[in-house]
Amino acid sequence: MNTYQFQTAGKIVAGSHSAEQTAAYISTTFGSVRSALIISQPSIQKSGFLDTLKSNLLQVGISCQLFAGIKPEPTEAQLTEIYNLLSQESFDVLIGVGGGSVLDATKLLSVMFTNPMGIREMLGTDLVRQAGIPMVLIPTTSGTGSEVTPNAIVTLPEEELKLAVVSRHLYPQLVLLDPLLTLSLPPSITAATGMDAYTHALESYISNKANPISDMFALESIRLISDSLVEAYQNGDSVVARERMLLGSMYGGMALSSSGTAAVHALAYPLGGKFGIAHGVANSMLLTHVMEYNMDAIQDRLAVVASVMKLPEVLEPSSSRAAEAVIERIAEWTRVLNIPQNLRDYGVQEEHIDSLTLAASKVTRLLNNNPKALGMDDISILYRKLLVAL
Amino acid sequence: MNTYQFQTAGKIVAGSHSAEQTAAYISTTFGSVRSALIISQPSIQKSGFLDTLKSNLLQVGISCQLFAGIKPEPTEAQLTEIYNLLSQESFDVLIGVGGGSVLDATKLLSVMFTNPMGIREMLGTDLVRQAGIPMVLIPTTSGTGSEVTPNAIVTLPEEELKLAVVSRHLYPQLVLLDPLLTLSLPPSITAATGMDAYTHALESYISNKANPISDMFALESIRLISDSLVEAYQNGDSVVARERMLLGSMYGGMALSSSGTAAVHALAYPLGGKFGIAHGVANSMLLTHVMEYNMDAIQDRLAVVASVMKLPEVLEPSSSRAAEAVIERIAEWTRVLNIPQNLRDYGVQEEHIDSLTLAASKVTRLLNNNPKALGMDDISILYRKLLVAL
Ligand SMILES: NC(=O)c1ccc[n+]([C@@H]2O[C@H](COP(=O)([O-])OP(=O)(O)OC[C@H]3O[C@@H](n4cnc5c(N)ncnc54)[C@H](O)[C@@H]3O)[C@@H](O)[C@H]2O)c1
Ligand SMILES: NC(=O)c1ccc[n+]([C@@H]2O[C@H](COP(=O)([O-])OP(=O)(O)OC[C@H]3O[C@@H](n4cnc5c(N)ncnc54)[C@H](O)[C@@H]3O)[C@@H](O)[C@H]2O)c1
Ligand SMILES: [Fe+2]
Ligand SMILES: [Fe+2]
Repeated sequence: MNTYQFQTAGKIVAGSHSAEQTAAYISTTFGSVRSALIISQPSIQKSGFLDTLKSNLLQVGISCQLFAGIKPEPTEAQLTEIYNLLSQESFDVLIGVGGGSVLDATKLLSVMFTNPMGIREMLGTDLVRQAGIPMVLIPTTSGTGSEVTPNAIVTLPEEELKLAVVSRHLYPQLVLLDPLLTLSLPPSITAATGMDAYTHALESYISNKANPISDMFALESIRLISDSLVEAYQNGDSVVARERMLLGSMYGGMALSSSGTAAVHALAYPLGGKFGIAHGVANSMLLTHVMEYNMDAIQDRLAVVASVMKLPEVLEPSSSRAAEAVIERIAEWTRVLNIPQNLRDYGVQEEHIDSLTLAASKVTRLLNNNPKALGMDDISILYRKLLVAL
Repeated sequence: MNTYQFQTAGKIVAGSHSAEQTAAYISTTFGSVRSALIISQPSIQKSGFLDTLKSNLLQVGISCQLFAGIKPEPTEAQLTEIYNLLSQESFDVLIGVGGGSVLDATKLLSVMFTNPMGIREMLGTDLVRQAGIPMVLIPTTSGTGSEVTPNAIVTLPEEELKLAVVSRHLYPQLVLLDPLLTLSLPPSITAATGMDAYTHALESYISNKANPISDMFALESIRLISDSLVEAYQNGDSVVARERMLLGSMYGGMALSSSGTAAVHALAYPLGGKFGIAHGVANSMLLTHVMEYNMDAIQDRLAVVASVMKLPEVLEPSSSRAAEAVIERIAEWTRVLNIPQNLRDYGVQEEHIDSLTLAASKVTRLLNNNPKALGMDDISILYRKLLVAL
């Protein structure tokens, strides 16, 4: 049996200025809505967009409350605290405006409001029982694709872990993709989140669960991101590059919803959970090394990636040369984008490798998708490659 | 303002044997379901699939009723009659198994059950008020893409018209794409429905409303269909070709949901409404002529299509040569696939051209998407090209 699935957000609206029409789209999508909770982060509040949004909502008769204090890579404790703060209120719709951290927080709060469970009981696949409060998600980074995935990532600092809630109840009803909201992203975040998006696409394409539907989204994501990542980093005002990144990031999310990410993400999570390394940075550090490890199993697929990336090496007779060229291009990006490549910069030392390895080895949900099995030794060798002598 | 939208079916499950698991997917998708109405057509009933489906549904505790008498290109009268027959019953889910005719009928019945309106009042865009009974759609032709579109086409024989109901309430909650169900399609229907799917993709790609999302689906649809249409026609047992056609047809539906079809479809509808010409045949007849008419406005886009179709002419220096090659390839297909090309075979004569032209000129919903405006003269010249002296 070789069946595969695709599911996504209820409705997707894209293009410059689309987010300004959020209130109107809420009315046409949901019918009568009285009260909304906006969930966001300080950088977006500063931009003034949330004020516009609030007044537009009021104009169509939707009263709203704002919580703009989501911290990057949200923890169980933070989410529970916010929930307790708001649990007496009732909202017809939750509107998340921000990076993956805000979107994941919105998704989790949505189901916390309707399920008598703590976050811990939801961790895992398909454990959320009831549909949540309807959601509108408006990404402001081009990275996680969280606006179209069934996943939400929670950081558990005590356990030094990042774990996922995976549930069909985490798809939003409405998504707005407005590149103008991403113009304010500083270069370093453009770089790290963009590499996260690229990693979603590449891992989905080589995943054991890759299929014709995920392949289409993965390759389109790779095409758009390789075409625009450096441009978005160097020239953050380029609306064209920003729009391509935002679409590429969404397609990466669509790809991974269908086929799953793999070893790069499995090894990245402990780096986030234990050392607070931003998700996109952790992925970029690992990406070339894990792909080298996978090479003999993925050479033909990487050759296709090379052609989508229009690398000149596709014209060479051997597909191994084209595949290698993909990895070289990724390495080149991390240099051009100034993404840190040494775990020692984050306080990681030799003595931490064993516990990182153990933590990564438990992320079987993703390791199972990897085209080559990874034993404990393989994982620790990979982490050691990132421990460069200072 | 340049916003664009994408919306699709709730969940899509694809692959050989996926339809055998319909009952299980209904349980996981909808939770508790007690009663289902299966809507289908005689050819599918003969295949035995509906008996399997019924017994699988019973096994998970879903009682079901079967109506397997949908006729091709359903009329208002037929749909109203079926509704009157069943309106006293209540169903938790409707399951449509068949070609576009069955899927469209299922979509219309779904909203007829919940809206106190006749079909006539629903004709047009966004006139359906309430969500319908949840739907599962299982296509058995690779043509309309109706399983992922908000459209349902109704034939009005008295008016000699085919008109559309367009509503977000016409998206199904669950789709199963099983290529094995399409193996029994006779070559002539494979050909006509396949050309319909290709037309959706090509018209979406040159539509005035084409956008980055619809373009991705359109090009992937074109790639898959041009790769497999002749193979599916000549070797109907090829599961690989059948699966590519089914995916290509779905992507065509996704493309047209976002950007709309154009003049080919506008001119095809009167041929169906007045002379009963099958939808795919009507499209194939018109396709090359309308594209020639559009040529100066779409040359660059057709050159991209030529490259996706891997036509050798893309290597030539002028993009006009590549664009012409697309039209030549389509003309070649209609010969290889033995698709009728003469309206006289269907009883159309010189004297009918004026009323056909008038009818087509009223399909402004689609004509507005065409990259070049069409006056009455242009339309009648196009129809006349299909009146070949016998
Ligand atoms: N749900 C999923 O499918 C999925 C997938 C991958 C990662 N994740 C998770 O998402 C989180 C990371 O999300 P992220 O990479 O988008 O980063 P983020 O949301 O943590 O944002 C990174 C930083 O950028 C700032 N920022 C965001 N948008 C901005 C803008 N437009 N202008 C200026 N500053 C802005 C934020 O305030 C924050 O300081 C992690 O917890 C990660 O594990 C989730
Ligand atoms: N809703 C939309 O978005 C949309 C788009 C395009 C066309 N349409 C409409 O869809 C209808 C046409 O649908 P269609 O082209 O799929 O044809 P169809 O459903 O009319 O089927 C054509 C013939 O093939 C038979 N058939 C179907 N599946 C079979 C199988 N697996 N094995 C053997 N025989 C089989 C049918 O019984 C019928 O006789 C028209 O009314 C057209 O206007 C709708
Ligand atoms: Fe990620
Ligand atoms: Fe059609």
